[in-house]
Amino acid sequence: MGSHCRDEVSNKQIIFQDYVTGFPKETDMVSKTSTIRLNVPQGSNAVLVKNLYLSCDPYMRSRMKKSLVKSYVPSFTPGLPMAGYGVAKVLDSGFAALKEGDLVWGITGWEEYSLITEPETLFKINHADVPLSYYTGLLGMAGMTAYAGFYEVCCPKRGEFVFVSAASGAVGQLVGQFAKLMGCYVVGSAGSTEKVDLLKNKFGFDDAFNYKEEHDLNVVLKRYFPEGIDIYFENVGGTMLDAALLKMRLNGHIAVCGMISQYNLEKPDGIYHLANVITKRIHIKGFLVLDHYHLYPKFLESTLKYIKEGKIVYLEDIAEGLDSAPAALIGLFTGHNVGKQVVVVARE
Amino acid sequence: MGSHCRDEVSNKQIIFQDYVTGFPKETDMVSKTSTIRLNVPQGSNAVLVKNLYLSCDPYMRSRMKKSLVKSYVPSFTPGLPMAGYGVAKVLDSGFAALKEGDLVWGITGWEEYSLITEPETLFKINHADVPLSYYTGLLGMAGMTAYAGFYEVCCPKRGEFVFVSAASGAVGQLVGQFAKLMGCYVVGSAGSTEKVDLLKNKFGFDDAFNYKEEHDLNVVLKRYFPEGIDIYFENVGGTMLDAALLKMRLNGHIAVCGMISQYNLEKPDGIYHLANVITKRIHIKGFLVLDHYHLYPKFLESTLKYIKEGKIVYLEDIAEGLDSAPAALIGLFTGHNVGKQVVVVARE
Repeated sequence: MGSHCRDEVSNKQIIFQDYVTGFPKETDMVSKTSTIRLNVPQGSNAVLVKNLYLSCDPYMRSRMKKSLVKSYVPSFTPGLPMAGYGVAKVLDSGFAALKEGDLVWGITGWEEYSLITEPETLFKINHADVPLSYYTGLLGMAGMTAYAGFYEVCCPKRGEFVFVSAASGAVGQLVGQFAKLMGCYVVGSAGSTEKVDLLKNKFGFDDAFNYKEEHDLNVVLKRYFPEGIDIYFENVGGTMLDAALLKMRLNGHIAVCGMISQYNLEKPDGIYHLANVITKRIHIKGFLVLDHYHLYPKFLESTLKYIKEGKIVYLEDIAEGLDSAPAALIGLFTGHNVGKQVVVVARE
Repeated sequence: MGSHCRDEVSNKQIIFQDYVTGFPKETDMVSKTSTIRLNVPQGSNAVLVKNLYLSCDPYMRSRMKKSLVKSYVPSFTPGLPMAGYGVAKVLDSGFAALKEGDLVWGITGWEEYSLITEPETLFKINHADVPLSYYTGLLGMAGMTAYAGFYEVCCPKRGEFVFVSAASGAVGQLVGQFAKLMGCYVVGSAGSTEKVDLLKNKFGFDDAFNYKEEHDLNVVLKRYFPEGIDIYFENVGGTMLDAALLKMRLNGHIAVCGMISQYNLEKPDGIYHLANVITKRIHIKGFLVLDHYHLYPKFLESTLKYIKEGKIVYLEDIAEGLDSAPAALIGLFTGHNVGKQVVVVARE
């Protein structure tokens, strides 16, 4: 065997099979084992990482369809590994700002080892005295999304009435806790009794309900918000958005973070109550975390402090092993996960 | 006859018959003649006015239905006269700021003479060197709506692509002219060839189209906005809004002024493309002119100047006589009016 093979190791990968329409299935991804050299090519500025934790996020659904127009994230390429946020350890680096042994988070491949050719997109982890997996969610993209969405887009004020949908998810559980820290009244919706209990007893929401047990969302929102909603942090879209529009208060804000109920539909649900935006002077603002990463240092500092003081807690749903990743991702769309969905590839 | 009757005169009125569902009809209103004393009651701060010009505005449709919840404007009362914006001459005043002979604009009755018991809501007209009817539209509520909606809600910048629906109407024709004055590229939609010609040749829009001749609004917006829309000034709602959502550019603004296509529907049209607000970070903001009247002096000064310089023109559709008012109002909902719909009750 030649010297070029000396550092080659086996590399299990989760391969994206083909573009998806409708509901994604586990078989849209397949496990395959190839090999990889554990060095970066001579003269390249790439980094070679060992992947530790991978993040499953709803936005990834948009990468599984064939984009007809330029999107903020490109489609996955059939035949190549899936990709997403993750936490990884640097094994070799051609990039000056990172060296062997450093821990990073950012976009990586769904595989054991990845050669990352845009290392400037990685965040170096300087605080490893919290669970490393937190950098897939709480201290990573989802946390930053909750922070930017709540503080920058919702324009919150003490005492306001805040509604969070998909409230026990990676983003929602944090939005609720940020809102409580600001002195808001917070109600969350989720899809099981267990999640409702968590919202009320672990995350400190003032109240919560299981939307799957309700047949009339207008009635339920009236029950939980007799005085109306000042802020709706929108993660689900569809009928929940339509019901919230009816209950919004004057000058209310709807921060549109996601619409997970709509991602697998061939035709989205119709929204019928938009005329409310006129009489109630409602602000609807869509946002992407990509526009807000300049706030990351400030977010990280305050959130680490909150974690250490016990003022913010975070729940993760840990799937063991790369082979569990396809099911973990699909589970997001049926609400199978309880808390932030993480996949452990390796613990160190 | 006693002295209390000495100043009583005949007063033709347009009476609101009963709450309306679906499309309003002329017969929802009826002409009736009663009598009125032309003095204000002793000790009252009311003013007694002779109505000159009345305004027909789409928002009045909302006053014709029975409000189940508190609205920003109350429902009309069956059996009492219709009411709306108008220009009037003061015949008698118990209100210190107004005296006999003053011209005013504000909310008045659909009748020859009105006793106005909230005279503080009236604006005194100090510039009568323009057509007085302008204070029902261009220099009144509609003009102020266009001004506040465009400058305060749309966040316009030179060179941006602006789309205005119902563009030849009371508000739209002005929004387009404001946008041109700011150096934007402006396209309007309207419902007839005549209106499209006006938009292009009288109001200076860069382009315009007749939506009634188009069977696919997505295709038509693509044609007129190959690079997308930065600002959509929304007057119509429904399918036009849905098509515009698809063509919005990154960080675009949708200022929701009205949704006239929806006001007479039992069930509004569904909107299916709201997920675009996330990826394109779209701002949707509903507004009511009521929140912006503090800008009226500034608006009036600049708009009077533009009128005198010939930089702003305004087209009115004048209906003669109080009896023509019901048909004029109904005509708004079929697009019968060409320009701002005014009813002349008396010219002085």
